Amino acid sequence: MDIVTPFQFSLVYNAFSFTFATMAAATAFFWLSRSQVAPAYRTALTISGLVTGIAAYHYFRIFESWNAAYTFKDGIVSATGFAFNDAYRYVDWLLTVPLLLVELILVMRLSRAETSSKTIRLGSAAALMIVLGYPGEIAGDIPTRALWGTLSAIPFVYIVWELFRGLGESINQQPANVQNLVRKARLLTFASWGFYPIVYMVPYAGLTGGTVTTTIQIGYTIADIVAKAGLGILIFLISVRKSEAEAGIDGFKVHAA
Amino acid sequence: MDIVTPFQFSLVYNAFSFTFATMAAATAFFWLSRSQVAPAYRTALTISGLVTGIAAYHYFRIFESWNAAYTFKDGIVSATGFAFNDAYRYVDWLLTVPLLLVELILVMRLSRAETSSKTIRLGSAAALMIVLGYPGEIAGDIPTRALWGTLSAIPFVYIVWELFRGLGESINQQPANVQNLVRKARLLTFASWGFYPIVYMVPYAGLTGGTVTTTIQIGYTIADIVAKAGLGILIFLISVRKSEAEAGIDGFKVHAA
Repeated sequence: MDIVTPFQFSLVYNAFSFTFATMAAATAFFWLSRSQVAPAYRTALTISGLVTGIAAYHYFRIFESWNAAYTFKDGIVSATGFAFNDAYRYVDWLLTVPLLLVELILVMRLSRAETSSKTIRLGSAAALMIVLGYPGEIAGDIPTRALWGTLSAIPFVYIVWELFRGLGESINQQPANVQNLVRKARLLTFASWGFYPIVYMVPYAGLTGGTVTTTIQIGYTIADIVAKAGLGILIFLISVRKSEAEAGIDGFKVHAA
Repeated sequence: MDIVTPFQFSLVYNAFSFTFATMAAATAFFWLSRSQVAPAYRTALTISGLVTGIAAYHYFRIFESWNAAYTFKDGIVSATGFAFNDAYRYVDWLLTVPLLLVELILVMRLSRAETSSKTIRLGSAAALMIVLGYPGEIAGDIPTRALWGTLSAIPFVYIVWELFRGLGESINQQPANVQNLVRKARLLTFASWGFYPIVYMVPYAGLTGGTVTTTIQIGYTIADIVAKAGLGILIFLISVRKSEAEAGIDGFKVHAA
């Protein structure tokens, strides 16, 4: 286990704790807000909360694993010999990344056939992207990391293409007052997801030891907050506006639970 | 306790954690979705969530037991001497397998008499199947394992026969738009349940030590995810479609909980 400085140890420690609190709070918010949107958008909010809830669980575990890997006593950080289990991130992404795409698809309220075909295609590509990235993440050398990273980029490019081409057409059919928000949600997905490969490539820059460990952990943590809690907030806003816009047509009235 | 390699230890460790997160997330999803289906289908979703909730509890316990059986320190895995409690799986199945059959029966909305007679017959056969399988699972020798495995197969064959003959007639009376989904749910039940005996027979192949332990744990874990969370998602989809189809007839309007 790479030795980290007391500052690096505390930074990562507090970032994990912060993210657990953020994800758990986001979960409560999304689930409590379900009754304030039309029934058609409730599954999107349910799934937004699942994503942050699953992430909260994994940040709790990763925090515990970080604490087990080091002791910070008398001002000195030392490695305990227990491995820091980085795999929690990949296990988390395997579950949450396909779900993030599902919430984006659901909030658009496409036809049943479109919803199911897009869910299967984008969900499978997302799972493949995560699975291909993992062997590189745990590899000790840069060439192996670069090989798997590049393979993982192929489904990523496909997802981006689908988001901008396939969903692009559907966005034009959304109500005028939400088109802009849906575009923002898509852009947030693209930008935050694009941040992960940058973090993944940090070791290429020749950084080593505690600095690379800290940079990777903080980088992935920021990306997770934006991609999960941030996207969920946009999904909530889109759901509220679409519910209001459709109220006149469907006779739906937003009401308290 | 069989010695496992660091790779095998981490694979099983992460698979148990992944499955806990999946089952807990599935439970939240099924219970939150109750308000989106007609009252007649809410019990099916309640029970789908019970099955995954019970499984989440057992995967939490089995994860703890795996961690207690081994230490992974300084890159070396060693057995602590504490037994890995495999019985959690059988305890889980004794509760969840009859409930899985109940959710399948409930979502079909048969007559009260049919529902109760099928529940009793299929539920008892499922419990018998689990009870007969356990003595073989803990047996040290192959002949004993094969004997109990074969006895356990008798109620299994009866369940399959009931699913395809008895439920077959009822499926033809389902609304046209869900017949296909109900057939898929039955096929998923059959295929995922058929996977358990294959895993059970892994020791027959002459595998030993850490490899057989890892193969059995990963095999049962995959089967559990498909049979419990996977079936639950199909039950949810069937419930939503049947609720929509009956909305015109029963005057049911999807409304907030």
